[in-house]
Amino acid sequence: MDKKIVIIGGTACGPKAAARARRCDQQAQVTMVEQGENLSVATCGLPYYVSGVINSRRELLTRGPDFFKAVMNIDVLTRTRAVAIDRKNHRVEVLNLKTDRASNIEYDKLVLATGSTPAVPDLKGKNLSGIFTLSKIEEAHAIRNLVSPRKIKKAVIIGAGLIGLEMAEALVSRGLEVSVVEALDRVLPALLDFEMAAYVEKHLREKGVKLLLGQSLTGFDGDKEGRLIRVITEKAELEADLALLAIGVRPNTGLAKSAGLDIGATGGIAVNSHLQTSDPDIYAGGDCVENVHLVTGRKILAPLGSTANKHGRVIGTNVAGGDEAFPGVLGTSIAKVFEYNVGRVGLSQSQAQAAGYDVVTSLVPGYEHATYYPKGKEILVKLVAEKSNGKLLGGQVVGPGETAKRIDVLATALSFSATVDDLANTDLAYAPPYNSALDPLHNAANVIRNKQSGLARALNPMEVESKLKRGDDFIFLDVRSPGEWAAYRIEAPQARLLPLSELRQNLDKLPGDAEIVIFCHTSVRAYQAQRILDGAGFKDVKFMDGSIASWPYELSTERKTPAGE
Amino acid sequence: MDKKIVIIGGTACGPKAAARARRCDQQAQVTMVEQGENLSVATCGLPYYVSGVINSRRELLTRGPDFFKAVMNIDVLTRTRAVAIDRKNHRVEVLNLKTDRASNIEYDKLVLATGSTPAVPDLKGKNLSGIFTLSKIEEAHAIRNLVSPRKIKKAVIIGAGLIGLEMAEALVSRGLEVSVVEALDRVLPALLDFEMAAYVEKHLREKGVKLLLGQSLTGFDGDKEGRLIRVITEKAELEADLALLAIGVRPNTGLAKSAGLDIGATGGIAVNSHLQTSDPDIYAGGDCVENVHLVTGRKILAPLGSTANKHGRVIGTNVAGGDEAFPGVLGTSIAKVFEYNVGRVGLSQSQAQAAGYDVVTSLVPGYEHATYYPKGKEILVKLVAEKSNGKLLGGQVVGPGETAKRIDVLATALSFSATVDDLANTDLAYAPPYNSALDPLHNAANVIRNKQSGLARALNPMEVESKLKRGDDFIFLDVRSPGEWAAYRIEAPQARLLPLSELRQNLDKLPGDAEIVIFCHTSVRAYQAQRILDGAGFKDVKFMDGSIASWPYELSTERKTPAGE
Repeated sequence: MDKKIVIIGGTACGPKAAARARRCDQQAQVTMVEQGENLSVATCGLPYYVSGVINSRRELLTRGPDFFKAVMNIDVLTRTRAVAIDRKNHRVEVLNLKTDRASNIEYDKLVLATGSTPAVPDLKGKNLSGIFTLSKIEEAHAIRNLVSPRKIKKAVIIGAGLIGLEMAEALVSRGLEVSVVEALDRVLPALLDFEMAAYVEKHLREKGVKLLLGQSLTGFDGDKEGRLIRVITEKAELEADLALLAIGVRPNTGLAKSAGLDIGATGGIAVNSHLQTSDPDIYAGGDCVENVHLVTGRKILAPLGSTANKHGRVIGTNVAGGDEAFPGVLGTSIAKVFEYNVGRVGLSQSQAQAAGYDVVTSLVPGYEHATYYPKGKEILVKLVAEKSNGKLLGGQVVGPGETAKRIDVLATALSFSATVDDLANTDLAYAPPYNSALDPLHNAANVIRNKQSGLARALNPMEVESKLKRGDDFIFLDVRSPGEWAAYRIEAPQARLLPLSELRQNLDKLPGDAEIVIFCHTSVRAYQAQRILDGAGFKDVKFMDGSIASWPYELSTERKTPAGE
Repeated sequence: MDKKIVIIGGTACGPKAAARARRCDQQAQVTMVEQGENLSVATCGLPYYVSGVINSRRELLTRGPDFFKAVMNIDVLTRTRAVAIDRKNHRVEVLNLKTDRASNIEYDKLVLATGSTPAVPDLKGKNLSGIFTLSKIEEAHAIRNLVSPRKIKKAVIIGAGLIGLEMAEALVSRGLEVSVVEALDRVLPALLDFEMAAYVEKHLREKGVKLLLGQSLTGFDGDKEGRLIRVITEKAELEADLALLAIGVRPNTGLAKSAGLDIGATGGIAVNSHLQTSDPDIYAGGDCVENVHLVTGRKILAPLGSTANKHGRVIGTNVAGGDEAFPGVLGTSIAKVFEYNVGRVGLSQSQAQAAGYDVVTSLVPGYEHATYYPKGKEILVKLVAEKSNGKLLGGQVVGPGETAKRIDVLATALSFSATVDDLANTDLAYAPPYNSALDPLHNAANVIRNKQSGLARALNPMEVESKLKRGDDFIFLDVRSPGEWAAYRIEAPQARLLPLSELRQNLDKLPGDAEIVIFCHTSVRAYQAQRILDGAGFKDVKFMDGSIASWPYELSTERKTPAGE
């Protein structure tokens, strides 16, 4: 008898598992069950369908049931829901949603690729029309039908995660006034530390997005026809013609739970390294399972199309009798947020500290390619490493310049437990249109090495801001040129200008025992100045990580002439 | 007594070593000696200065002697040549080229960062005016003065390496007719295998560059005034107003040799992992030394600004009393060649085979990002791995799409002796504007895994072309759609069209014991078809790696109707 492989779910992991199983085993009976109409939907493309960057729905639908049958000899049942698993008899009960008839499908190996569902908080007004989530092409289409002919004016997005910000861009591009409500104190809180998020927030505000941070959604008001008119938060009431709930997704585990399969503490289906559930004949992958985080070794949810596709291949191999393991994930994420490229991999500083790591970080503004090659755009790199051994824990790279490359280099490095020493000497490709002789990643790794060796000492911008706010007695030494100072600067009673080129000649003007925190534009000059003062016997000198280029607070830009000029 | 550190060479490694030494040791006396006028010249930017992409010479000159003195307290002697090293007395004899006066500088630690010089073959006419090399800003300026006002019409570049091709673009952009002469059978022969080079050559020819491959330069003809008028090769005589010799560089080792320091078999100064020469008080780095290749463990020359800068940091640390090692290089290279991005890392297939490896390769055409996201451009990925264990040996990525990211991911992976299994599951950043759920690198790794596991069997395009040329008896099965066939195809008596979607229904039309080589556009369908035929009991089925998208030979593009339609 040929092996019977049944796959539940037809979006990403499911079709990939089915196709791979077929390629590994030409004799098996392969059946795929999908409750929706469509297969292999590119759901990551939905924000771009809403914006119109992607024109037609068909571009997001690559393969239909006919393709699966003709080319792969896979039977596909669409509009069919799996309602129960009879593990003892190796049967899945399915319901044909068109005919409402139930039937059973036998399996030797079963694959659960049941995906996830956007979270909807149980709040007043949640069923009003005009409130959406975004996980299906039908939802994207409904939103597009509202915004494309500019029927509506005001949108409120709840949740400043990846989908929330991608949709902010899409809706602004459609001419809407867009507000984003986020319960935490920053955008992309699961990805970015405060100063990195602040850098992105500046860009969002420039693009006209209103950010309401640190406030939870409390409910919705509607009109008599049941249409949304207002979004209510703890601190504000926002007029809204459209609201998008983008506060995350929940793994679809109902079928697995009912069948008695183990569910992990994360809420995802528990699987081993072969993506096998607690029943050896049932595999699971994609958004519905939990993953191993390769840095911490802990379980996390990682609902991403990239992971789902990798899962699919591993499962397809294994259900066909092969032996393949999935090592885990790094939480690698990237999003286009208007003209910024925003990425992270591994742990942020806050996540690393919450996980108990003693960390050392660097915050390095840089350019995507050689500064002398035209049209170079800025990027801001933050690295997080373990203090005791310099092992990389994570990285964040944001800005208008190229960031995806740097994130992928870090992802590869993290896969091999690389240290900052490894990263600093990695032979990355160099030519002026692509990067500098030393990439910003090299510089960021070297800053950590300098801190580790005791050469460099720094405070992060938030620590400096606290000191300024508290009115601490220290010298906040700006070593930029008078011209730069005149154009923009950090105003504070502690601030003082002394250009780097004049520092060696003016050491007597600084008190040797005072606390001195030095900054410039990117920290390169500030570090140089710190070493000069160290060498001259100053006792308590540090620089500010990232300096003005990554200062997340206000700058004074009123033109001024430096005192004494 | 403060330590005396003397550095010879002021381009890349030298200034970096000097600055790093100063940051590590504020008390040392640091002196840098440079025979030219300029310091810290961005020589990698010279082709862009010739083209005018970089406007002013000043952009390539970042730091002068005053900067080094004021900020770093480093004494810089420009227009000063180091003529001899007295190792016994720890002295360098230098000659002031302005005054012609010799003097001695004492050192505790000496750094040789003497760079490299373009190779000039000893051929008839080599001293004619109009013949250039490109390693100094003065040379770039002289070329620019000839081409900027369009005084001349025809340029011949000798050598199709990185600088040769960057300069081909620069000179075409200045309106010149450009020919490139290369002794080997392909462009970028030190970087690319034949089929990858062919892909780049198509683009060069589209841009109007005349390629004269497989022919050596034999000399130059001049007029009575000593001006170049012709470049002579083994097979052609080319009219030329300008010739550029770009056949590689030689490490400047004269000073080291005279001082009796060890020179490696590569011709570069021999150094240990700390970049220390055979004299423990003399360090060397940059273009003048040899490096360890991290894949082979063998010594190679790697004259690149990126390597020179990393060397500088390591040397600066060590001469200041620190302890830092430089692990080695991967031969990572990238160049912008008109609208193509051309990169490689590690070993090409030909290099790996020459080094004695038994290899398995993949050749995968793909897109830089999700196919449904607009404006995606093609890339072509070739991976080379060790057959016995799947260990990556190298990668080449070329095309109009994004390649630098893929090269840098591979560079990072190669640094950790990654296998194709590792690469296939690396958690790279995914969002539609940046890549597909599975990156072309993942696909390329998976093709090798499929070959390793026996699922996939393939011939490369050159092997197929030999079979076609020999008139071998086999079926060359095109499984694309009739529409694709009508637009472009490989013409051969062995070629036959049978679209993948009709294959399962038409198995009886193919002889089960014939040799069948399948192709499509990218190989995805061809591999699928191979598995179908395998499953149906066909005995000798393979696909063609890379299929039509990477076919390095002629395609028929005359519109045709498939037979039987």
